[in-house]
Amino acid sequence: MFRILKKDYQSNARCGQLSLNHGIVNTPVFMPVGTNGTVKTFLPFELEEMNIQIILSNAYHLYLRPGDEIIKKAGGLHKYMNWKNNILTDSGGFQLFSLSRLNKINDDGIIFNSHIDGSRHNLNCENVIQIQKKIGSDIMMVLDHCTSSDTSHSDALKALNRTAKWAELSKRFYNKNVDDKKQKIFGIIQGNLYKDLRKLSVEQITSIDFDGYAIGGLSVGETKEQFKDILYFTADLMPQNKARYLMGVGTPEDILLGVENGIDMFDCVFPTRTARNASALTANGRINLNNNKYKEDLLPLDENCECYICKNFSRSYIRHLFKAKEITAGRMTSYHNIFFMKKLMENIQKSIYNNNYKSFKNDFLKKYASLKN
Amino acid sequence: MFRILKKDYQSNARCGQLSLNHGIVNTPVFMPVGTNGTVKTFLPFELEEMNIQIILSNAYHLYLRPGDEIIKKAGGLHKYMNWKNNILTDSGGFQLFSLSRLNKINDDGIIFNSHIDGSRHNLNCENVIQIQKKIGSDIMMVLDHCTSSDTSHSDALKALNRTAKWAELSKRFYNKNVDDKKQKIFGIIQGNLYKDLRKLSVEQITSIDFDGYAIGGLSVGETKEQFKDILYFTADLMPQNKARYLMGVGTPEDILLGVENGIDMFDCVFPTRTARNASALTANGRINLNNNKYKEDLLPLDENCECYICKNFSRSYIRHLFKAKEITAGRMTSYHNIFFMKKLMENIQKSIYNNNYKSFKNDFLKKYASLKN
Repeated sequence: MFRILKKDYQSNARCGQLSLNHGIVNTPVFMPVGTNGTVKTFLPFELEEMNIQIILSNAYHLYLRPGDEIIKKAGGLHKYMNWKNNILTDSGGFQLFSLSRLNKINDDGIIFNSHIDGSRHNLNCENVIQIQKKIGSDIMMVLDHCTSSDTSHSDALKALNRTAKWAELSKRFYNKNVDDKKQKIFGIIQGNLYKDLRKLSVEQITSIDFDGYAIGGLSVGETKEQFKDILYFTADLMPQNKARYLMGVGTPEDILLGVENGIDMFDCVFPTRTARNASALTANGRINLNNNKYKEDLLPLDENCECYICKNFSRSYIRHLFKAKEITAGRMTSYHNIFFMKKLMENIQKSIYNNNYKSFKNDFLKKYASLKN
Repeated sequence: MFRILKKDYQSNARCGQLSLNHGIVNTPVFMPVGTNGTVKTFLPFELEEMNIQIILSNAYHLYLRPGDEIIKKAGGLHKYMNWKNNILTDSGGFQLFSLSRLNKINDDGIIFNSHIDGSRHNLNCENVIQIQKKIGSDIMMVLDHCTSSDTSHSDALKALNRTAKWAELSKRFYNKNVDDKKQKIFGIIQGNLYKDLRKLSVEQITSIDFDGYAIGGLSVGETKEQFKDILYFTADLMPQNKARYLMGVGTPEDILLGVENGIDMFDCVFPTRTARNASALTANGRINLNNNKYKEDLLPLDENCECYICKNFSRSYIRHLFKAKEITAGRMTSYHNIFFMKKLMENIQKSIYNNNYKSFKNDFLKKYASLKN
């Protein structure tokens, strides 16, 4: 399901193609986040128009609301939300630890109270596969035991071993219960910020035959140096021939780092969240429309952008909408920012094909840092 | 600029056509409200797709934010907001009395503090024309002195005479200062809930040669009976050959009453505001998506609706988005509700052409009352 089409000469960057149940995904790819089965402010056709080939949603969130049964009844999430291209669902491992009130965790699973209404639930490595089967995810993620960055080595090791055990059970359950193997499944590498544990986790998880492997537990509050260090170290140990997914990343800067280390897939709320906070991504860096200097600025958000918003609306107008607390402001800026990320990924792909990824990256970053708000 | 094309045999309902600077408007028409130069949740092209021929904006709001000068610099509101069809701007008379902290009002104008930042401003019947000239409104409204429904007869009379004086000065100022007479100007009839004052106001305002006449000061908190009574009485006194605009109205029920009394134009926040509160308009009445019974309802908002939302999304899904506080929920429901209002107006027009307005009205209202949430 994953083919590498081109490798960069000077780095580990590569271009590839995922063949999924709802079409081809060209990599490196950025997946817009639609946690609740909607990419915030968008109608799905707008993402299709931009040629977004895959979005991310979240099994934990959808299980709690609207519920996996109604999604199944609707014919799966694609039909429920009217989205034609691919969907990867995170299992919700991360959200279970960050959002819910945990009650009990052991090898059998996680008992927790919903962050929405406090109701009691039980998720384990098997029923999260069932849920993702009902959702109709094109890529399922296994359940993992996440840990915070201040976790001790021994606790991180325990979580790691549980993650490995769950991964094994997940794959076995998947093999038996998911008839349609067009639904793919990825394992998740953990190990906190300990290199020996990352190494162990890579060995544990990649010994199981998943369709792809993700790096979890990064971009969760560690320093930039720690992020780089663990990313480089972990990515280097991962198998070449499978898709590599860096979860929860990221900004243009972090994506460029990831690509350089052979990462194929990314997801992050960054472009849509920052948009709703009046920040637009431009080739020269982020601009904050709340800044008074844009009051009479009749230029588009990004002068060289060809998106619908940039062709039709000015910074001054969109700023006015933000000031007036108009929903359309966030809608316009989200549209532009997702377009910007898509364009960035296309340019990354082109540069890899043209054997000039490193110079593309340096030029991009130099320009991207040029604007001081 | 206004032609009557068909009169109903059994009522005062009529079909007509306004020829404005940004195209034809078929009447009776409902104008979606875009107070701040945006119809909430929409991009303008979506309204154009529905063949919305005119929207309403507000000179008072736009003067305060973003400012009439930046709109002028952008080439007018049409260009600033990227809207191709017509714009009617209310002067803001109503908002001056309902929103701002008034400081002083006399025949020379109104000194007030902005509801946004408390800054001090001075508006009068002449500079609101200047502002609307800069905005590039296709129809300008004169400044009027609004009164609340508990105003005494003598105070209402004073406000009325001031409104008449301002109307006179407005028209004179318009004649001298607005070169492009493609920008039309409407007078506003006031008189509170006093019939003698309504009669006097009709005489005062229609003696001035405006392009159309509006009924102001209704739908501001009076009882349904008072609304009907004053509407019937006032509309009946107004000239036949000019467009009649019932300001701030309304719901399907009130629009049907207005049309029956020869009203040609309506505006109201109702369809978009109610949409953001999870209420969708259907042929069988309003449905509130927060209601638990829609949790697993895979029907569209309105089974017989042909709008993009109804063709692609279910009540269950849109309800889920409301529950998850997703912006897209209000966006989808607003789209549907504006489409519903547009369709209602088209059906009203058809029924007038077919000489069966009364039976159309009765059938519509019977069905519209059939659903009990």
